[in-house]
Amino acid sequence: MSKQVVIVGAGLSGTTAASYLTQAGVPVKLFEALDRVGGRTYTVPPPENCSGPVDHGAGYVGSTQTAVKALLQELNVETHEVPGDGFLYTLSWGGNVYYMKNVLPDLFKYLAWYESVAICLAIIDMYWKGMSINTEEPWNSRNADEWDNMTVQNWIDTKFPGSKFSNARTIFQFVCRIPLGVEASETSFLYFLWYFKCGSGFYDLLFPAQDRIVVGGTQQLSEKINATLPKESQAQLKTPVLAMDNNDSSKVVITPAGSSQIEAERCILAMTPHTRDYIAFNPLLSPMYHQLPQRTPMGTTIKIHLFYKEKFWLVDKNLNGNATIFDGDSISQTYDCTAPGGTPCLQAFYVGKVGRRMAMMDRKAREADAKKTIGKIFGEKANDSIGYSEFIWDNHPWIGGAPTGTCAPGTLTCYGNAVRAPTGRIHFASTETAYEWTGYMDGAIRAGHRAASEVLKELGKPEPKPLPPVPVEQMRKDDVDKLKLVVNFTSQSVQKWKIQISNLNVASNAAVAQNATTKEAQQFLATQFQNSSEELKDYIKENKMQADDLITGLKMLQESVSNPNMLAA
Amino acid sequence: MSKQVVIVGAGLSGTTAASYLTQAGVPVKLFEALDRVGGRTYTVPPPENCSGPVDHGAGYVGSTQTAVKALLQELNVETHEVPGDGFLYTLSWGGNVYYMKNVLPDLFKYLAWYESVAICLAIIDMYWKGMSINTEEPWNSRNADEWDNMTVQNWIDTKFPGSKFSNARTIFQFVCRIPLGVEASETSFLYFLWYFKCGSGFYDLLFPAQDRIVVGGTQQLSEKINATLPKESQAQLKTPVLAMDNNDSSKVVITPAGSSQIEAERCILAMTPHTRDYIAFNPLLSPMYHQLPQRTPMGTTIKIHLFYKEKFWLVDKNLNGNATIFDGDSISQTYDCTAPGGTPCLQAFYVGKVGRRMAMMDRKAREADAKKTIGKIFGEKANDSIGYSEFIWDNHPWIGGAPTGTCAPGTLTCYGNAVRAPTGRIHFASTETAYEWTGYMDGAIRAGHRAASEVLKELGKPEPKPLPPVPVEQMRKDDVDKLKLVVNFTSQSVQKWKIQISNLNVASNAAVAQNATTKEAQQFLATQFQNSSEELKDYIKENKMQADDLITGLKMLQESVSNPNMLAA
Repeated sequence: MSKQVVIVGAGLSGTTAASYLTQAGVPVKLFEALDRVGGRTYTVPPPENCSGPVDHGAGYVGSTQTAVKALLQELNVETHEVPGDGFLYTLSWGGNVYYMKNVLPDLFKYLAWYESVAICLAIIDMYWKGMSINTEEPWNSRNADEWDNMTVQNWIDTKFPGSKFSNARTIFQFVCRIPLGVEASETSFLYFLWYFKCGSGFYDLLFPAQDRIVVGGTQQLSEKINATLPKESQAQLKTPVLAMDNNDSSKVVITPAGSSQIEAERCILAMTPHTRDYIAFNPLLSPMYHQLPQRTPMGTTIKIHLFYKEKFWLVDKNLNGNATIFDGDSISQTYDCTAPGGTPCLQAFYVGKVGRRMAMMDRKAREADAKKTIGKIFGEKANDSIGYSEFIWDNHPWIGGAPTGTCAPGTLTCYGNAVRAPTGRIHFASTETAYEWTGYMDGAIRAGHRAASEVLKELGKPEPKPLPPVPVEQMRKDDVDKLKLVVNFTSQSVQKWKIQISNLNVASNAAVAQNATTKEAQQFLATQFQNSSEELKDYIKENKMQADDLITGLKMLQESVSNPNMLAA
Repeated sequence: MSKQVVIVGAGLSGTTAASYLTQAGVPVKLFEALDRVGGRTYTVPPPENCSGPVDHGAGYVGSTQTAVKALLQELNVETHEVPGDGFLYTLSWGGNVYYMKNVLPDLFKYLAWYESVAICLAIIDMYWKGMSINTEEPWNSRNADEWDNMTVQNWIDTKFPGSKFSNARTIFQFVCRIPLGVEASETSFLYFLWYFKCGSGFYDLLFPAQDRIVVGGTQQLSEKINATLPKESQAQLKTPVLAMDNNDSSKVVITPAGSSQIEAERCILAMTPHTRDYIAFNPLLSPMYHQLPQRTPMGTTIKIHLFYKEKFWLVDKNLNGNATIFDGDSISQTYDCTAPGGTPCLQAFYVGKVGRRMAMMDRKAREADAKKTIGKIFGEKANDSIGYSEFIWDNHPWIGGAPTGTCAPGTLTCYGNAVRAPTGRIHFASTETAYEWTGYMDGAIRAGHRAASEVLKELGKPEPKPLPPVPVEQMRKDDVDKLKLVVNFTSQSVQKWKIQISNLNVASNAAVAQNATTKEAQQFLATQFQNSSEELKDYIKENKMQADDLITGLKMLQESVSNPNMLAA
């Protein structure tokens, strides 16, 4: 048994690793603290008199998440499109509700021209900064120290100075809060950029990451993988690992709760990083590894499901059920997640700071709050729900939050390497260790595959065949197309104000030559805006750097479209 | 046994709580994970051929730390003054070493006049902001949200804009790193202000907090308290508590490692907050309590001791051994911590980001690095050490860092209440739960006393007599005296540049009347500075708000000296 490998955690990452190892003939022991496999995929039955499974955890599959798509195919699990285009989306901010055909162009219609411009500039800035991130080693990115010493909020404050941009600020705070469950003021800007780069850019992460649900729920992926394992390698439930002893450097001695010690050649910890601290290592891991778990707080996510007799949002108002609530209400987002043939169901999220407050209230208060908000945006029939289900991830005994372990300033540059790099005979999986679609099911699968590959290499066994790559080129092309769209929308929005910003697209203009200084760029902008209102002139004056950014951004954008090599980070 | 109380953690806080409870006749069980009592007080024998105990952990007692002073007296433990005034202090920055009689006035001699002014303004700003903090509930302070959404670095950037203030920036980054072990860019500004207010202000925390060492070492405090407990209440070593079950709401069922379950009326967790997560609570604590441990990372502290045949720093150069190294070297601070009659000994600290790097090196590399720096500042005899001892707190198996659990942005306002407020039958001690001298031995004692008082009140027993109060009025008076000193030094420093800044002290000037606007204040400053250099005019222009702050600060200072009521937060 000397070549046995122990895996701790039977979520998607741990079961994936177990699968690759056992396929290569390696004996595996898989331990799981919970009474089920699946980790952050967690499927429960619907409330009484309702049908369709409820995904309390990971629920969506995006079009560029090729690892999870391949796994779904391999396991013969179907997906089902979330209602989207063709119906109306809902956006709500500042106490007002807006219904729109396409979120991005239409959103600009409701913002002042200067906020549209500022948002356009910020998206371009975020995109280009994100593209410079080294995803495998973000701490080795060009501006790593500078950006890891900043919060996302610091960046937002730079892009949206003064009091004129409160909507823009709200939107970008939302852009941090929604995928991570933590506030912009709590999050390292480097980590934020890295997360988005791993998830294929600004736009793709917020939208197509959520385009299909898994028929039958997502937990079945881990269950099915677990079922294919040799019986002796299947997950031992309710068995947390208490200790790992590596004093004899030729092996690791594992102490699972309630059963006898076993020896392993190597171990894979497939757990969210803050829980590594639950294991007593002897000798201790090195200081960097020992302090990391204190520094990867989970986000706050409460996911609720409300069931209805009919899709009243669709029937009454032609709404697709997808609402984005930037501020003013406690709920941040809703989706129509009705299972094929199942009871009509709306899903809603409480996240971040407001989520923390809601988590301390009682269940009835949350249900009432959710119905009130859903009623306001979708109609009064929100009150006629026939079933309610909720899960507070912050209170999960072993995971303690969702969707992912995040990084405050200083963590990635000081402790980042300890997230994934093996130490001694210990390897690491979990979606946090992925550098493609980290925080998602796709990342969990890639992390399990990568950790298994590391171990197989050490054991002198052939590594498994690679996973389908993330379609990077296509994704970058899509990003640029979307950026161009944003620029066009901004341009239209500004034209509405009779301002000739569209001329900015003439990137060949002498004033925006590669070496244009900030001053030249300002002059160029001033020329473009010569017929503009006083307000615009003030804006240019107050936002010198931003005006320069816009020109630089537009120029780089145009160049990169004609020269794909520029797209490489 | 129904009124038994269980305490987890036999550091200074836990043993203190045990002492008050047993004195009131309450049966106590005290569990400790380590093989010793004392927690972050940790005294070990010196290296071979050396004498005098080595305090790897908490080592100093400050003059306003009345709780620890009273305890020392009660236990008949002596203290010994650290060499200070009368000899020369050492400061090092920018690669240069300076020897000076008094740190604060002399420091200003070596800084450009505009850096002195900026530092003076920043100290005043920090002082007045700090005074507004509600120490018992910092999340309820007037500007809590704003300051908790900022890092200390954000505040530094505001106070020291542009490239002219690199020394000032370095100094204030040091002011965060030294007491907390984390970087300014990682720390909530609210938390930082709160920590300083708890520790009696800017100046007192950095200097008199370190004025005496404990003869025989600090760990003996916990040992002596433990020895006074009834035998059945003395600490059970090597016994971490694994689980707490509160399903029967009339009691808590405790599962200590390796021994049978016991029942308790109430529990006190006297552990640093991030380790609360090591206990499995059933039912779980509420989400706020459950997520807090992910959000109180310990600072980085490596404490090293180098022993010598003679005090060469004193003999050769009349230096007191106290060096403050703002930047340029890995070591941040040294002290002469020679025990009375013991082998001459210099203590040095690696903290914060550079400490994390040093923690990953091997012992020999640290020793060599320390000798190199000490040699540079105290003389070549640094190489003739006869003993070396070190401890890396980041690698402590149960504590995981030092000196204290810190707060990144967003933590205090969202989770702060869960640090100290009891939940169900569980109470909290540890120095992090103190609101006077938090992070210090004094705070640990106060936290233990407070937790014991809470429990006694619940049990219907008389509460223990109060601890000697922190001498707040004296401390505030001292603070103001020191602020005035800083203003005078600044004034002198500026006068050296033939600038009449001393006139600023005329706070009765019409231009600094209570309602003076920023513009009026600027004009006043401009008048004062009419004969000044172009450089000064540029400074005033670039730092409008700071000029206003100086006037406001000086005015408030003068008012508060004549009107002590203003000193109340």
